Amino acid sequence: MTAADRPVIPAARYAERLAAAAGLTAGAGLDALLIGVGADLRYLTGYAAMPLERLTMLAVPARGAPVLVVPRLELSSARSSAAVGAGLLELITTDETEDAVAVLIDRLAGELGRPPADLRRLAINDRLWASFVLRFQALLPGATFELASTVTRQLRMAKDADEVALLRLAAEAADRVIGQVSRGHLIGRTEIEVSREIRERLVAEGHEQSEFAIVGSGPNSASPHHDASERRIQAGEPVVLDIGGTVEGYTSDTTRTIWVSGGYPSYGPDPEFLRLYGVLQAAQAAASAAVRPGIACQALDATARSIITDAGYGPNFFHRLGHGIGLEAHEEPYLVAGNAEPLRAGYAFSVEPGIYLEGRYGARLEDIVVCGPAGPLVLNRSPLDLQIVDGR
Amino acid sequence: MTAADRPVIPAARYAERLAAAAGLTAGAGLDALLIGVGADLRYLTGYAAMPLERLTMLAVPARGAPVLVVPRLELSSARSSAAVGAGLLELITTDETEDAVAVLIDRLAGELGRPPADLRRLAINDRLWASFVLRFQALLPGATFELASTVTRQLRMAKDADEVALLRLAAEAADRVIGQVSRGHLIGRTEIEVSREIRERLVAEGHEQSEFAIVGSGPNSASPHHDASERRIQAGEPVVLDIGGTVEGYTSDTTRTIWVSGGYPSYGPDPEFLRLYGVLQAAQAAASAAVRPGIACQALDATARSIITDAGYGPNFFHRLGHGIGLEAHEEPYLVAGNAEPLRAGYAFSVEPGIYLEGRYGARLEDIVVCGPAGPLVLNRSPLDLQIVDGR
Repeated sequence: MTAADRPVIPAARYAERLAAAAGLTAGAGLDALLIGVGADLRYLTGYAAMPLERLTMLAVPARGAPVLVVPRLELSSARSSAAVGAGLLELITTDETEDAVAVLIDRLAGELGRPPADLRRLAINDRLWASFVLRFQALLPGATFELASTVTRQLRMAKDADEVALLRLAAEAADRVIGQVSRGHLIGRTEIEVSREIRERLVAEGHEQSEFAIVGSGPNSASPHHDASERRIQAGEPVVLDIGGTVEGYTSDTTRTIWVSGGYPSYGPDPEFLRLYGVLQAAQAAASAAVRPGIACQALDATARSIITDAGYGPNFFHRLGHGIGLEAHEEPYLVAGNAEPLRAGYAFSVEPGIYLEGRYGARLEDIVVCGPAGPLVLNRSPLDLQIVDGR
Repeated sequence: MTAADRPVIPAARYAERLAAAAGLTAGAGLDALLIGVGADLRYLTGYAAMPLERLTMLAVPARGAPVLVVPRLELSSARSSAAVGAGLLELITTDETEDAVAVLIDRLAGELGRPPADLRRLAINDRLWASFVLRFQALLPGATFELASTVTRQLRMAKDADEVALLRLAAEAADRVIGQVSRGHLIGRTEIEVSREIRERLVAEGHEQSEFAIVGSGPNSASPHHDASERRIQAGEPVVLDIGGTVEGYTSDTTRTIWVSGGYPSYGPDPEFLRLYGVLQAAQAAASAAVRPGIACQALDATARSIITDAGYGPNFFHRLGHGIGLEAHEEPYLVAGNAEPLRAGYAFSVEPGIYLEGRYGARLEDIVVCGPAGPLVLNRSPLDLQIVDGR
């Protein structure tokens, strides 16, 4: 997969997104959206800006033109982004000794035709750093600040066809890596060595960056966010592989739990593991199959959880079922108890139950699923049946 | 360089850092420091936590024991950190559906022996996400929030011997990569290809992660934050290499500008470039040589800038001279006009003037320098004289 094979989000899409964001901002009674570096900025403008102590920020006023403030050093990067290139944004640069927050506030107030002291309700991106948040609050003591996700989530949760295509490319690249590593040499290697191999393979298969490569062998498979350690993989134990990276900013995230036998039948999975895996697979399949427009996020979580609980493993599945995915590895919607949000077509998320027997072993299975108009669209294609691999 | 060769920050150091932080917190009249994921957390506890939408936070109260709140999924990672392993922190886990901010506030109030409503002044880490900042503000409407850097900067700016040793290991690893790439094949390759090679070499030479690998050839050398493009390197032009990664969390960051001649004398540097480079080298050397305790950060910037300005290139050096470095690639102190902060022994920072002739070419030279008790300690050892390389 080369860059030329990948869908490109056209500039017209950014114009639509910016217009929609302005409309939602006005509709919510907000004066403006203030979007610093991160996924919201990339979604609205195509600009994958570097996180820096210097302010980079898009202001989308309820009325008037959107403005992008960037440090002068970043000017050429900003110019090469889709929205700036298409002339959709007014670009303002700040020098090293300027207060960029003050510059942005002045410009925004001018756009809205009001003095800065009359800015009342502003929404800031959820991951904006406290250093910027407190600076805005200090300069605008009369304003209230809310999270921009109340606006951007409505746009970002439902993926368009180009976004789904990118998520699929990323998912299929990760699937190839799962297959390669499952067929390869594992026994006697440390988790860190295998994790490094996975990271290289993620890039070789078309990710611009590998983001994580969890390798949890034996008892480490019982820790859901175990990373990778100096432990050496042995015959006769499970290995959890939870891997992902980005393709044009869109994230892959898939988990398979394999059993390493060394080719010896006597080192195959024991009956408890087979039972645990069977329950897990049934729960994962049931939750994926239940995906359709209108079903609540928490209902999907409950679907998987009830199967696991009925089998007696309830306390051993102690995390949510899944998370939204797109330009962030974790984003809305979250499939978790208490989230009554109904799915809509285009929502993309992980379905990843796990069962963990602390000190012994565990397993997790994870696919990325898109809510289609009538049911689930599962992006990952690696086998979900237990793979018993040689590993020598 | 293997992990075993690297200095390890001993647990006793974290005990000292936590005690110092509590002392400074009390001395500043603050109720507590609230430190989310990032460099402050790693500095105070050794915990390199994953950035997540779930709250991970260290609370250091002015009186009483420090507390670490982590999502239950992160329990085993948190336990493997130095400060938790040494029993320096009380560990509290939260489940998926709990409000972790509320849990932390309750625990903190208990530690201080006051109701939550009597928490008055809290300091939050500078890079805490707005989603957490606004949640704290909503739950504690009577409290004021300040940046924790007012406390942590006093600790983090002056590096101890182990930290300097790690910065040196990182710097020397980056130097080796500069040498390897300068001696290698460059002509006809794209900047992206060379950048990818640099990233691999940074890891091969002992970085746990490569963070950036700027390759700016020909006219791209005139853009300070150019990343790397599909442009192919040619004979008869300069290439800026600005590269870095982390060793045990400590960052390398070095820049060299080389001239690629293809082995042909007629493709050597022209007189303007030689003059520009000579001015740049003199400015970089003068600023490095001026490093000593007591000199103001802005004086170092002015030292380099006056040499460049006197040579007529003042407008072509449009960024600050440098930035502090340690567990973050950019941290305090910043060497910038207006920063009267005097250096103290142990401060570590980049010294990196640049001269950029837009559309034509540019150059930058960057060393990491530590302020020693009587003068500069320069960590990088790559030659600063112009390297004219073959590149075939």
